[in-house]
Amino acid sequence: MLIGQVTDTNSGFFARQLVPYGWQAISVQVVADEAEAIKQALDRSFSESDVVLTTGGLGPTKDDITKLVLRDYFGGTMVHDEETTSTITRIMRGRGLELNDYTRSQAMVPSSCRVIQNECGTAPIMWFERDGKILVSMPGVPYECETMFVREVLPQLIAHFNRDMSIEFRHLMVMGITESALAMKLDEWERKLPDSIHLAYLPQAGLVRLRLTGLSSEAEVLHEQMNTLAEELHVMLKCYIVAEEDKPLSAILGDLLRNRGLTVSTAESCTGGNIAHEITRIAGSSDYYIGSVVSYHRKVKESMLHVPAHEIDMCNVVSEQVAKSMAQGACRALKTDCSVATTGVAGPGGGTKDIPVGTVWMAATCAGKTLTRCKHIPGHRERVIQRATNEALMLLIELLQSEKSI
Amino acid sequence: MLIGQVTDTNSGFFARQLVPYGWQAISVQVVADEAEAIKQALDRSFSESDVVLTTGGLGPTKDDITKLVLRDYFGGTMVHDEETTSTITRIMRGRGLELNDYTRSQAMVPSSCRVIQNECGTAPIMWFERDGKILVSMPGVPYECETMFVREVLPQLIAHFNRDMSIEFRHLMVMGITESALAMKLDEWERKLPDSIHLAYLPQAGLVRLRLTGLSSEAEVLHEQMNTLAEELHVMLKCYIVAEEDKPLSAILGDLLRNRGLTVSTAESCTGGNIAHEITRIAGSSDYYIGSVVSYHRKVKESMLHVPAHEIDMCNVVSEQVAKSMAQGACRALKTDCSVATTGVAGPGGGTKDIPVGTVWMAATCAGKTLTRCKHIPGHRERVIQRATNEALMLLIELLQSEKSI
Repeated sequence: MLIGQVTDTNSGFFARQLVPYGWQAISVQVVADEAEAIKQALDRSFSESDVVLTTGGLGPTKDDITKLVLRDYFGGTMVHDEETTSTITRIMRGRGLELNDYTRSQAMVPSSCRVIQNECGTAPIMWFERDGKILVSMPGVPYECETMFVREVLPQLIAHFNRDMSIEFRHLMVMGITESALAMKLDEWERKLPDSIHLAYLPQAGLVRLRLTGLSSEAEVLHEQMNTLAEELHVMLKCYIVAEEDKPLSAILGDLLRNRGLTVSTAESCTGGNIAHEITRIAGSSDYYIGSVVSYHRKVKESMLHVPAHEIDMCNVVSEQVAKSMAQGACRALKTDCSVATTGVAGPGGGTKDIPVGTVWMAATCAGKTLTRCKHIPGHRERVIQRATNEALMLLIELLQSEKSI
Repeated sequence: MLIGQVTDTNSGFFARQLVPYGWQAISVQVVADEAEAIKQALDRSFSESDVVLTTGGLGPTKDDITKLVLRDYFGGTMVHDEETTSTITRIMRGRGLELNDYTRSQAMVPSSCRVIQNECGTAPIMWFERDGKILVSMPGVPYECETMFVREVLPQLIAHFNRDMSIEFRHLMVMGITESALAMKLDEWERKLPDSIHLAYLPQAGLVRLRLTGLSSEAEVLHEQMNTLAEELHVMLKCYIVAEEDKPLSAILGDLLRNRGLTVSTAESCTGGNIAHEITRIAGSSDYYIGSVVSYHRKVKESMLHVPAHEIDMCNVVSEQVAKSMAQGACRALKTDCSVATTGVAGPGGGTKDIPVGTVWMAATCAGKTLTRCKHIPGHRERVIQRATNEALMLLIELLQSEKSI
């Protein structure tokens, strides 16, 4: 992580899981695989918090030293854990593999810990206690770490501390207003918020997520207060609201489609299948999503989406007209009610003076109505693709919201 | 970030950019938007390093307090920066917006800093110095932060410190051997590595990335050493190597296709366009990628990929036969040399006793040769999709590597 080859998603996962129990993450530290650095990080963490969660550094190879550092830190010797050997053997056999010296060494743990069996991998989970404080060491692989945290670690933490604080959130996703215009609109209202309730602005490509957070030991009072405040926000921002919960654009679109019994397809050029991917990330998307044509090459636009060749020749492949024909062609070819299309230059090559890198034409169509839009998205290739994906999803959301009759 | 709503990608970006200059990130800290927590984090960071990079907390809204904390920390008063006002005005006008009180307040900065104009957004970049150490405060929005770091901050840091350490990396991506078997194979060799050179194992869905890192003040000696060691690794692991640099699977596939002058398409069901997305993330992929059919609904498999209806009825839609027909159908429909197909159950719904959630059939085809494989992928929906995407890319890589004659 400290050379940027791997991105930490575990700490965010823990935080999201802990929040509903009123647990506040104080800080996240990323430290080198060096004994001294790890010890210092442990000292710091214990000085400011009651629970320390660590991940990673538990592999069988020489660069993984966390287990030895924890033994030095909490005392004891390395001992062989019989149950862990059984777990590891079972997992390896399930993968069609036999134990070797390296995997066998995974069953050695500090005598000062209690082992929680890891049902997803070969690194044991270790629970240490000292002076009423707790450290849980988990594997770094996100799938193992997430699964075992939810299944074992979190329930054991809750049982141990017997929590009684309440935390509540309300989310609003707003579109068509900038963060600063929003802040001015809410200024007076925000000043009057009680100390226990806090408003955060989270801008995100083309929209702003507003999050109201309340923390209190009186659950019912808090709940009432949050309801009242959320209602006030709703009244003030009515015309900008696209969703009243925090969810991906593709889920907002999915709800709109499901509620109206509509089906959708996509016709993608510069977004290269990413709109389809965003839509299908959502569980249950098969209720409304039928399929896509990714027409990267011009021939595919012609043969599978029936974009007329003369249109491409006359208007350019990156044009309003071609985007429109792609969306309408997808509706026909895939037999869907709605469709959204993109054609643009994601870069870094391919730009011209008239159509520079970052130019994206989009079209959304539904029941005979079509909306088109052009965006000039600055930045590198991945950003253009991601931003164009969001803009295309928003264009279709906008079309569906404006045409309530569809 | 501390409630897990946003994932930090900036620190990894900085680390990747700094590494070639021999700069080592010592730690990453994520702290709450609270003055005391920020001050403590600054104290810690300055105690262990010469440069502190901070991002975020610079927005115009009340929850952003970094600027005030920095003024208290480095001294001085808040002053109005004329040049920043011009920059903000220019940026806002470019977006078709006028300044309001909130955006205007962005031009107020501590008198103790030197401002670096942010050409990508309205939050100024601030450079502070004290006792020969440096703090640079940057906006949190990844696009702004990344662009301005590369364009302004990094060059200024290099000029300031006049670095002379050399760092070198060598990467090997290996497939078909587990991390622990690999570690046993390399055990003796690894023990003999000089202190200045370090081997890391980075397992990743289905393959292991090996990274050799060397740090030295003698650039040429290091370069020779690294070449020799990389060659030794190459000889030992020859039959497992899929790439000798650290790059995404889709880029490895892209190189294979480009070198042989082959074109590719995808036919995706459960991966929902994600393979297409992975392929098109790579700049220049239009050299070999033609297009895709995402056939989520069975009708699309029949109409656009020409999978025979009786095959779906007899074998089940998630079957070896259907995966094979999808891949071959995509080659025909999209007129490509190769294709890769997936059909499976991403979950959480849709599983049966015979075909549980996580079952994915894949097929790769090229010039008349077809390879099929079934994987049972544990975990949640997003993991199944991502893992199936990687497995499908690897299947096609395997086919191309095994059939050198293609």
